[in-house]
Amino acid sequence: MRQAIYKTHGNAADVIELVEVDMPDLQPGQTRLKVLRTPINPSDIVQIEGVYGFQPPLPAPAGLEGIGEVVEVNGEGLEPGTLVLLPEPPGAWSTEQIVSSASLFPIPDADIDQLAMLSVNPATAYLLLTQYVELQKGDWIIQSAANSAVGQLLTQLAKARGIRVASVVRRDSAIAEVKEAGADAVFIDGPDLADRVAAELDKAPVLAVDAVAGETFARLTATLQHAGTIVLYGKMSGQDVHMPDAPVLFNDIRMRGFWLTNWMQNAAPEEMGRVYGELTELIVTGQLSAPVDRVFPLDDINEALAYTMKGERPGKVLLAPNGV
Amino acid sequence: MRQAIYKTHGNAADVIELVEVDMPDLQPGQTRLKVLRTPINPSDIVQIEGVYGFQPPLPAPAGLEGIGEVVEVNGEGLEPGTLVLLPEPPGAWSTEQIVSSASLFPIPDADIDQLAMLSVNPATAYLLLTQYVELQKGDWIIQSAANSAVGQLLTQLAKARGIRVASVVRRDSAIAEVKEAGADAVFIDGPDLADRVAAELDKAPVLAVDAVAGETFARLTATLQHAGTIVLYGKMSGQDVHMPDAPVLFNDIRMRGFWLTNWMQNAAPEEMGRVYGELTELIVTGQLSAPVDRVFPLDDINEALAYTMKGERPGKVLLAPNGV
Repeated sequence: MRQAIYKTHGNAADVIELVEVDMPDLQPGQTRLKVLRTPINPSDIVQIEGVYGFQPPLPAPAGLEGIGEVVEVNGEGLEPGTLVLLPEPPGAWSTEQIVSSASLFPIPDADIDQLAMLSVNPATAYLLLTQYVELQKGDWIIQSAANSAVGQLLTQLAKARGIRVASVVRRDSAIAEVKEAGADAVFIDGPDLADRVAAELDKAPVLAVDAVAGETFARLTATLQHAGTIVLYGKMSGQDVHMPDAPVLFNDIRMRGFWLTNWMQNAAPEEMGRVYGELTELIVTGQLSAPVDRVFPLDDINEALAYTMKGERPGKVLLAPNGV
Repeated sequence: MRQAIYKTHGNAADVIELVEVDMPDLQPGQTRLKVLRTPINPSDIVQIEGVYGFQPPLPAPAGLEGIGEVVEVNGEGLEPGTLVLLPEPPGAWSTEQIVSSASLFPIPDADIDQLAMLSVNPATAYLLLTQYVELQKGDWIIQSAANSAVGQLLTQLAKARGIRVASVVRRDSAIAEVKEAGADAVFIDGPDLADRVAAELDKAPVLAVDAVAGETFARLTATLQHAGTIVLYGKMSGQDVHMPDAPVLFNDIRMRGFWLTNWMQNAAPEEMGRVYGELTELIVTGQLSAPVDRVFPLDDINEALAYTMKGERPGKVLLAPNGV
């Protein structure tokens, strides 16, 4: 089988290489999967760069999520042909995987691109929306990187709950995308963001979520109402967070951070089952979807990474290890 | 009567001036107080500088807390000679005040310097210790500016609850002071603070409180255990907060801010009564006290301010508007 690995940390498009790996024999309790689709997420890229919250020893396989199909089982297991989420990242950017049969659960048939992205972005959006502030119908939330996959999913989940969404983007060309996703107000990021938000919204947001860091974090903080919360979940600008002290000291603004891995490691199995069950249902019924830009064959992974990292895409880039 | 006012924002030692003010007649429901003692707090200085959370219109009277004695009452009220906290700041840096009789409550006789400092620093220390993390006996907290009045009071309150205190100071000469106050471990602030704390403590702190900001905030954050909380309550370094993103993103560190005025404006009267009752009792019985450095006559207020702002003092500076 073929697998994408990196031997040193660095620019993902440069350090990733495809290698041939001999598949070992299937042991009792193991299942062999064919990988159907696997997205390129920001977390993949920062892990390859060496600045993620956990780093596997080098050389390391890459790719943190994807969807596969059961090919062969040794012992008890799912029927061949059943769809499953890849259970043991990293290593999703491969043609095949051998995994523990006990770690698999069946996924219903649906749009295979959307299912491939189920475990990371929808769960991130869901938890950002539900874990930090008890939002009421009519409340405003504000988000940066609103045209990202998480941003679009967060908007869809919020709208379904009657929460109003103020979306902040960095370029005019993204305005139409986020409006289509359901944003109630759209702003271009800039120094006077807080003034423009205060002028347009009937009340100040109670929750801000930020994947950009740098000055954007400070600007979002300044839009919040007294005792509001801002949650950092990414650092797309590559800049240090500017944390303004006056809102924290005098306006009781609360600052938190979100990393999906913390939740995955600490959540009770029933809670994970409930969250992923609800998200799967929303995807299968078409109520939740993230825009897809392009699907590349695994053989073109370096080109796919270079394309992804250029930015300004209208959707997610995915890999198809066994044919598009 | 004489009163300290400022007509422009700026360096407190320069812009404060003493003026003579004619006392109006006492109206029904009013009490005239003689101000006995009033401290110079960091919050006084930043309000005069114009960078506090609220700013009275200029020219403005200065001084945010103090203790007075009832001199004369028009109508129902307390007996002349009764000690009371000044109820309507700012304006504490005066020889006299006329206030609403309904806003006064009697304070038992005790060390008049300590009583003059009751409303700001002990309440700050108490709320920092109790409002953010449910601390258990044996837990560690870590604090910067540990030799400040709040730092010393926080140490005393923590020790009484069986909480262990790691105190961070910026100079060798402060080590003895904080050890005497009860600190279980003492560290000099510096780039390798987190490593030294990890090496010396048997477990990582669950709560950090910081009045310094700048790099100290980032260093304290790095000492905390997973899901620990850091509370900013001052900015003595004058530097912007350095907020490190990795602990927030990957270690679920929570960041909060504390401003006593928020609590005073939002706490239920019963809660305020309970907190101040407990603190008064601790002061009267000598279990809680902040070190006093010098007491200046009100006439020497500019000298007192210049002395206070030089820093490196072994205790608080107070004013005695009616004689030391």
